[in-house]
Amino acid sequence: MLDTSLSDMIQNRIDQKTKPLGALGKLEAVAHQLALLQSQGLAQPIGQICINQPTVLVFAGDHGIADEGVSIAPSAVTQQMVLNFLAGGAGVNCFCRANQVALKVIDTGILLPVESESEQLIVQRLGERTGNLAREPAMTMAQVEQGIALGRQVVLDTIQNGSNLVMFGEMGIGNTSSAAAILAALSDDDVESCVGLGTGISQTQYRKKVALVAAGVHRAKGLAPKAVLAEVGGFEIVQIVGAFLAAAEQQIAVLVDGFIVTVAAMVATQLQPECREIMIFAHHSQESGHQRALALLGANPLLDLDLRLGEGTGAVLAVPLVRAAAEFYNTMASFAQAGVEVTC
Amino acid sequence: MLDTSLSDMIQNRIDQKTKPLGALGKLEAVAHQLALLQSQGLAQPIGQICINQPTVLVFAGDHGIADEGVSIAPSAVTQQMVLNFLAGGAGVNCFCRANQVALKVIDTGILLPVESESEQLIVQRLGERTGNLAREPAMTMAQVEQGIALGRQVVLDTIQNGSNLVMFGEMGIGNTSSAAAILAALSDDDVESCVGLGTGISQTQYRKKVALVAAGVHRAKGLAPKAVLAEVGGFEIVQIVGAFLAAAEQQIAVLVDGFIVTVAAMVATQLQPECREIMIFAHHSQESGHQRALALLGANPLLDLDLRLGEGTGAVLAVPLVRAAAEFYNTMASFAQAGVEVTC
Repeated sequence: MLDTSLSDMIQNRIDQKTKPLGALGKLEAVAHQLALLQSQGLAQPIGQICINQPTVLVFAGDHGIADEGVSIAPSAVTQQMVLNFLAGGAGVNCFCRANQVALKVIDTGILLPVESESEQLIVQRLGERTGNLAREPAMTMAQVEQGIALGRQVVLDTIQNGSNLVMFGEMGIGNTSSAAAILAALSDDDVESCVGLGTGISQTQYRKKVALVAAGVHRAKGLAPKAVLAEVGGFEIVQIVGAFLAAAEQQIAVLVDGFIVTVAAMVATQLQPECREIMIFAHHSQESGHQRALALLGANPLLDLDLRLGEGTGAVLAVPLVRAAAEFYNTMASFAQAGVEVTC
Repeated sequence: MLDTSLSDMIQNRIDQKTKPLGALGKLEAVAHQLALLQSQGLAQPIGQICINQPTVLVFAGDHGIADEGVSIAPSAVTQQMVLNFLAGGAGVNCFCRANQVALKVIDTGILLPVESESEQLIVQRLGERTGNLAREPAMTMAQVEQGIALGRQVVLDTIQNGSNLVMFGEMGIGNTSSAAAILAALSDDDVESCVGLGTGISQTQYRKKVALVAAGVHRAKGLAPKAVLAEVGGFEIVQIVGAFLAAAEQQIAVLVDGFIVTVAAMVATQLQPECREIMIFAHHSQESGHQRALALLGANPLLDLDLRLGEGTGAVLAVPLVRAAAEFYNTMASFAQAGVEVTC
């Protein structure tokens, strides 16, 4: 749990900047959160927020439910997109280049493993793909525990390598079905409000998706979070849950991406409420369940760009806003410094 | 007027990228607009959008209406903030540093001129400050014409110096009153819906502000745009109108900031409809009239961060999104290049 005793001093520092009170809106909240995180254990608030080597970890996994035809693409595309990530050609790569963000890809269990010597690839497979959540458990409890441990380790290694701002992305044909099932199982929301159009399915596919997800939710409803993951989770989602737990333990900020990552954030917060304190919500995606998951976490995301790509793209796009928040906290003049009459 | 004959080819290029159709939301529209602008006069769409030295021009001017006490600060603060801009201590400076954006400050007529050798300062004063728009014309038609010419020249010089993405910011105690009056005079909106809380006035001040603005609007309603500027405009607003006209003539993209700049954009568009084609709307501010002005321009801004600072801060914060749009247009792999099965 964060020590919030420095919170008033941090807010006072922000309020002395040469601007009307609160005039920088959401960026003030980001600066406050980062300053508080980075001041833990100190007697005074820090004077400088540091943003060191932001890194996005893209977790890829395949899903048994993909065989049901509820996605716009077959499972083979998961591997093809992993190769695209490693070649630097995907959307998330473009945004990493534009925003100076490092990227790693984690194979958490994709149908067709890739052969690559790339240092950007981390292989920690929990299997070939999950069971079809509509008909059988997605994975065993042992796989859940193993996945959480592996996801934790990736974040610890990333911090060890010098990053203090991490993001999680995902790739996995079928994973909006899994995320919707987890959300419905762990919330009071009905299945239909948790299921969206993914990257763009038809109304007929949507009806089928709702029915399949509902079958999984029927088994998972009322179970503890980890048991829900075993019933209807995904390998990439389980590892992302572990990643959040490690970031919270290390008090490192996470810029939270879209629907799937936000559902993982929700699971992590149910397992460990302190996880909520390190989360900065990057964006509001077009996936309908995302709004529900954000509301459950009390989140007010920075961006709303009508994105529906996943991969961590929304989180990477928000990195400059985090840097801007740090910059104003670090270097914006106070009324006294600038000789400006106090206007509020 | 832009030649839109390459529009379909540009859209096709975007649609072949390795993502579901439309999955990058607003960034796809930005990429399309920039590619079309930069392809003018060519037989094929450009392959690479170039973003060269984004520059924010902060126009500062003082307002006679400030004597009425409808702002949170006195006119002296305009000069104090100009000095803060030149010293690098204001919010817009912080965001320029974070986002590698160049900044110039234009004294269009502030009550107390600054003494500075800074190369960032451009002095082109139209007077000491405007007349009190509630009681008298803000300026003469000759000042309007001169202001438009001076504003144009700053943009031509900025382009000459290598920038192809410009932003306009403003500083001027009292300028939300002026912008509200222009908006009400040139639209069908009633005065009350055009007047907001500025940087944070009380309800009593707000009632007074509405009455004062209404007095100006009473004189200005039904006049042509330039005559409206003479009655109720501001020196900084007039120069920003000229700046938009020059950018449109040169077919250079403008990232449009908040309420005051959006009102100037509306005036420019009424004078020259082609101005609309070069505008990318950066953000939705908290000032209530801003939403009205955006709606009149059919704008769908990129950001909504609850900002209410002005200075060009919202525009500068959106620069990384424009760079990200250019990067995906330039370097994101197509389905064919990446060997990804077409999923849509």
